[in-house]
Amino acid sequence: MSISAIQFAQQNRARFLDELKDLLHIPSISTLPEHGEDVRRAAEFVASELRRIGMENVQTIATAGHPLVYADWLHAPGKPTCLCYGHYDVQPPDPLEEWLSPPFEPTERDGNLYARGAVDDKGQMYIHIKALESLMQAHGGRLPLNVRVLIEGEEEVGGEGIAAYLRQHPERLQSDFALVSDTEMFAPGLPTLCVGLRGMIYTEIEARGAKSDLHSGMYGGAAPNPFMALCQMLAQLKDAHGRILIPGFYDGLVAPSSAELATWKTLPFDEQQFLAHEIGAIALTGESEYSVLERLWARPTLEIHGMPGGFIGAGAKTVIPARAVVKVSMRLVPEMQPQASFDRYKKFVESICPVGITVDVRLIHAGDPIVIRVDNPYIEAATNALRVVFGRETVFVRSGGSIPIVGDFERYLKIPTVMMGFGLPDDNLHAPNEKFHIANFNRGIETVIHFFERLGAA
Amino acid sequence: MSISAIQFAQQNRARFLDELKDLLHIPSISTLPEHGEDVRRAAEFVASELRRIGMENVQTIATAGHPLVYADWLHAPGKPTCLCYGHYDVQPPDPLEEWLSPPFEPTERDGNLYARGAVDDKGQMYIHIKALESLMQAHGGRLPLNVRVLIEGEEEVGGEGIAAYLRQHPERLQSDFALVSDTEMFAPGLPTLCVGLRGMIYTEIEARGAKSDLHSGMYGGAAPNPFMALCQMLAQLKDAHGRILIPGFYDGLVAPSSAELATWKTLPFDEQQFLAHEIGAIALTGESEYSVLERLWARPTLEIHGMPGGFIGAGAKTVIPARAVVKVSMRLVPEMQPQASFDRYKKFVESICPVGITVDVRLIHAGDPIVIRVDNPYIEAATNALRVVFGRETVFVRSGGSIPIVGDFERYLKIPTVMMGFGLPDDNLHAPNEKFHIANFNRGIETVIHFFERLGAA
Repeated sequence: MSISAIQFAQQNRARFLDELKDLLHIPSISTLPEHGEDVRRAAEFVASELRRIGMENVQTIATAGHPLVYADWLHAPGKPTCLCYGHYDVQPPDPLEEWLSPPFEPTERDGNLYARGAVDDKGQMYIHIKALESLMQAHGGRLPLNVRVLIEGEEEVGGEGIAAYLRQHPERLQSDFALVSDTEMFAPGLPTLCVGLRGMIYTEIEARGAKSDLHSGMYGGAAPNPFMALCQMLAQLKDAHGRILIPGFYDGLVAPSSAELATWKTLPFDEQQFLAHEIGAIALTGESEYSVLERLWARPTLEIHGMPGGFIGAGAKTVIPARAVVKVSMRLVPEMQPQASFDRYKKFVESICPVGITVDVRLIHAGDPIVIRVDNPYIEAATNALRVVFGRETVFVRSGGSIPIVGDFERYLKIPTVMMGFGLPDDNLHAPNEKFHIANFNRGIETVIHFFERLGAA
Repeated sequence: MSISAIQFAQQNRARFLDELKDLLHIPSISTLPEHGEDVRRAAEFVASELRRIGMENVQTIATAGHPLVYADWLHAPGKPTCLCYGHYDVQPPDPLEEWLSPPFEPTERDGNLYARGAVDDKGQMYIHIKALESLMQAHGGRLPLNVRVLIEGEEEVGGEGIAAYLRQHPERLQSDFALVSDTEMFAPGLPTLCVGLRGMIYTEIEARGAKSDLHSGMYGGAAPNPFMALCQMLAQLKDAHGRILIPGFYDGLVAPSSAELATWKTLPFDEQQFLAHEIGAIALTGESEYSVLERLWARPTLEIHGMPGGFIGAGAKTVIPARAVVKVSMRLVPEMQPQASFDRYKKFVESICPVGITVDVRLIHAGDPIVIRVDNPYIEAATNALRVVFGRETVFVRSGGSIPIVGDFERYLKIPTVMMGFGLPDDNLHAPNEKFHIANFNRGIETVIHFFERLGAA
């Protein structure tokens, strides 16, 4: 071999980026039924690329929802086996009018690649594939360790399919650790491993009043209004100080250790900067007795995402809607239990339902909160690889987000996960103008190459 | 002439109904900009029909919004002049999936004509035109009294155009009284004149938090949520007993006289029947210290119509929306003032706006509450005509709805209005499966014929 994997990756940067753009062109929005065919196209794209670079047993695995893509290469006896996870599905792009370039026409601006899914998670998932390609090319079609690749298409809608597959066929995925690149760096240039995630329960409350929509003049004053009922209930779920009022909701919560809290205090976090540049509101909210990082990483939340129903067109319609729905999610922290949290929530909502209204409280999906132990060789190899590429020591952080699969890896495969992410705090996940810093795409590929070579050499 | 106007009307019932169906085919939804052309077509339909039956000076009058249709016949010196008012625009038909037959394909079932606008107000407006046609035919091209016709296309969106025209050109509309058929009968077969209307203010509150949509995992706990803010504010506007909590909101309210309240007690109103058949909810709501009719006719309301913004698709999207809107209307009763009521509401909403949120409180449109005096010859002639057709004494009721034009007639033309409606309580105004009882369409035409002949003979 006259070329190293790193050299190969560096020489092929332009092609790697072009391929990523092709993948980002596909609007694989998993939550919208009308994009089912696009989701399948994205799965085929990924499978065909895994085949091309030399992975074996490449297959798409049908689920009740969108397919999994699987591949492996298991010819490194005595070496660890890594399970590379990612997802090829994306969030809906709305509100469309706020995008500066169309969400599914990847566009480079100022060293960033703008597109829905650029960082979450097509770009980060593609880092693994391009690192594997570079290693294969440099090592004569071989890898320095054993690798399984498992890529799902339902991460943004709860990941039912992959969870069921893990539960039913853990033996097919036997590995020593998982690698997940679906998180972010704490600050530009600061290598970061994520060692904690919030869990979540995503719910809907449907409130029903009259049998059909009513004229608000003819019936207003005596007919129940499902929207007002939802507002009255929702206002009783959280107080003005961000405290969640569901009885027993905080039961089982374990606060971070004082050592972990002390580490967080050393992170380069500027609350005013965060407010001005990331949030852009007139003030932060929430439990002011906790630091912002604690609120984001170690405290549960209750958020409203939208309230379908009624009249939402331009102008005026004087209707008392028969039904109204609210989409509410709660983020959970260790050791809160999703099912118990949902049960408490449902019971409380039902108990405060106003006169004239019936409610249906539904669990859409759930995921456990996670804290990862940092005393294992995979975390150590990861910090070493990050040091080589970024020239700095790694910080351990948590994320306020939820990656339910990490809990499933722990539960069904009994393996730890290395959450090595290359996103940036201003990458606009789930929002208009999502982007991926192109330099981090390249650094990510090089880091994974170093990481795998180091684990293979051990 | 060998045929009376009543005979003409009876012999032409089938044709009159077919013509009404043609008009109902036109989706003249005034609030939706994409239906602008349909609204114009409906105006042309009405104008052309007025021309055909022999009315004079027929014209469409441009406004800032949708056109007015005007016509007159003023060759009965010494006789009173009636201003016939109606509207040719309709409410949006959504939710479409709840219609048993398409809203703009008029369908007869069980003696009713189902279509959006069947009763509100195309069918009732058409009663006037067909009464005028019958009178013209029976009286050799003459009418027994002077008539002006003024039909608008913006009633469902606040009636700005007609209000401006009345304000600017009251001399062009000089009349002795107005006839409005846009209300309902208290019960099937019970002739009813409406002598009171609630006013209204239709508003929007827009709440803004972050500069763009945020990931609820990454930012939940510290970022403001405009939907939660709206819920917290809305829950403070009305208590669980239906009492509106805006300071000073009830100032100026004048309760009905004890005589009027006594009359209401004699009306055939069955609360359980009302709940089961008209509302179809598990219970009525509102201020239980007032009777249901008082709550509907003589107490103000505050209702939510819809909450646009955020994620309302199927499934899950974990977004904290940057903006959320709520559409709120308040019905007002005499002598509450729309502008003063809006000012109090806006001030209160702004005063309870949660941390991190900015609000914009907007007035979309407004109308005065109305009470009509019943000691005038037009009300007397109307009760006589109703007695002939229905064979029963007329009841005087109020309506919980708002017909702002009635206040404008009083203010700018100094004339009383006869609100003689032929709808039924279960006609599904503003709701799916709106209908008009076909027998009432026919009886309405005959009543207006008697009414005009009586006034012409006086």
